[in-house]
Amino acid sequence: MSSLKWPFKNSAIQNLFNIDLPIIQGGMIWASGAKLAAAVSNAGGLGLIGAGSMKADMLERHILKASSLTDKPFGVNLPLIREDVEQLVEKILEHEVPVVFSSAGSPKRFTPTFKEAGIVVVHVVPSVKLAQKVEAAGCDVVVAEGFEAGGHNGIDMITTMALVPQVADAVNIPVLAAGGIADGRGIAAAIMLGADGVQIGTRFAATIESSAHDNYKQAVVNAGERDTVLHLAKIGPARMIRNDWTDRVAEAEARGASAEEMRELLGKKREMAGIFQGDTDEGQIEAGQGSGLIQDIPTVAELMERLLYETSHTVNHTLG
Amino acid sequence: MSSLKWPFKNSAIQNLFNIDLPIIQGGMIWASGAKLAAAVSNAGGLGLIGAGSMKADMLERHILKASSLTDKPFGVNLPLIREDVEQLVEKILEHEVPVVFSSAGSPKRFTPTFKEAGIVVVHVVPSVKLAQKVEAAGCDVVVAEGFEAGGHNGIDMITTMALVPQVADAVNIPVLAAGGIADGRGIAAAIMLGADGVQIGTRFAATIESSAHDNYKQAVVNAGERDTVLHLAKIGPARMIRNDWTDRVAEAEARGASAEEMRELLGKKREMAGIFQGDTDEGQIEAGQGSGLIQDIPTVAELMERLLYETSHTVNHTLG
Repeated sequence: MSSLKWPFKNSAIQNLFNIDLPIIQGGMIWASGAKLAAAVSNAGGLGLIGAGSMKADMLERHILKASSLTDKPFGVNLPLIREDVEQLVEKILEHEVPVVFSSAGSPKRFTPTFKEAGIVVVHVVPSVKLAQKVEAAGCDVVVAEGFEAGGHNGIDMITTMALVPQVADAVNIPVLAAGGIADGRGIAAAIMLGADGVQIGTRFAATIESSAHDNYKQAVVNAGERDTVLHLAKIGPARMIRNDWTDRVAEAEARGASAEEMRELLGKKREMAGIFQGDTDEGQIEAGQGSGLIQDIPTVAELMERLLYETSHTVNHTLG
Repeated sequence: MSSLKWPFKNSAIQNLFNIDLPIIQGGMIWASGAKLAAAVSNAGGLGLIGAGSMKADMLERHILKASSLTDKPFGVNLPLIREDVEQLVEKILEHEVPVVFSSAGSPKRFTPTFKEAGIVVVHVVPSVKLAQKVEAAGCDVVVAEGFEAGGHNGIDMITTMALVPQVADAVNIPVLAAGGIADGRGIAAAIMLGADGVQIGTRFAATIESSAHDNYKQAVVNAGERDTVLHLAKIGPARMIRNDWTDRVAEAEARGASAEEMRELLGKKREMAGIFQGDTDEGQIEAGQGSGLIQDIPTVAELMERLLYETSHTVNHTLG
């Protein structure tokens, strides 16, 4: 068991979040409820409830459930683009959630409120320019998320490899790397790039405790490295597993379809259909390029132990 | 000077190429002639003459010049797409170049010829599927080149972070990582991802010994992480620094312009104009996303020492 030791120096992340391992489970709509978040926190990382697919009442239920499932800290991922975001913020404050990861909006809007409440605030960005705005807004940590990440994505298409060291150079707050990380090799690489820890999405979406549909999890397992595609640049780029629907989207984009047409082609509730209801032909199966590295659907405890082992093994195996 | 030690185990790459450091300077049209290649080899890496912008006679002159500038091994990068590729192959065989990096074509075509002549054969790919074909063709090494790389690029848009570990799992031959690597952090990360060494392009294009125009080198120095764009997917995707011309390309692509129109918009000799003649407004300034990490134009000797220092420092600084 001596190889099951985190091989890197402790970073500011462990102290800030009060966790053993600087491995954060990304908040994902329809996949990361209380069960997944609590399991990750119980295994020594930080689990996040993904508020993106929850109304305020539902978020409250998940916060209460997570509190009953773990004594460890957990967080909430909050897409600021939501119209009812203030109601979500109220629930976070009311139940004293210790960590908030915000995204898809200005970090200036709620950071002062959260900081006043003693909450650790993290914001997710796809570029150096936005990372600097996150630091200026007073956030504690920034997530540098690359083009290979699943789900919603930046318009500048900057990859994790290129983005993380540039963000690390540009800000003084700790940096989490996200995008394309699905095993210990990716974790070790992220640390080398200058990250203080990692945020991992798709790998956690394909675990037993994830609330995604079994068809979704199996689609991730089946996907090779060429099977995710980035579409919808005109209305908000997202990465997903290629299927019948994305082929129609690709055809429309190749002929220069308008934003309006793309919105029609997207329709409503396509993420719910794909991730939660398991419609792998017509749903939006959000997943990252790391899907090609995912071959099974383990429990979170098994996965976390494996990630720790792989990270340690990677370092020990490569050093001269 | 104790920190100037390569921190990783020696890999198959050092033995195969007979070099001290598993750092390969990518062959780049209009930038990597004999002077750059020889300087990299003299500094302990492997320099490549980029045959992509040379007719057979010119390639011969560069091979002879490189031989006069270094006693160390160097190689030639050979784009198989060239109509006169057989004439280029003849020169490589005639002058007993020890290493060939081929790309943009089937590795089956010339690998047997090169292997018979005792040449180490490497092929560059953007996907796992093609990496397996490279191994099956009998190549000695495969380069897994990510979406963040400058110049010609794969259609599947797979990033270095996602691609390298998947290629490492899929083949038994050594793997070089390419794309987005511009400093020691990127080198250390690539090794963690499972690579046996790295191929670095843009960082070497912005050195004193590079034959690119000073305007090109300065454009790389000036570029931030959001300043490279990938275009021309319909006729052969390439990554370059955004300028007046790429803005017109982007506009045409957004309205779904045909491959024929894109070919017209590309015209002829645009890479030469951009890289060799220094037309930064209308030329094709091929460069990778790592450009944002490049802040100066050092000599190759300075750069190689820096890369070694940074790689060593990165490892020592992160380990617990």
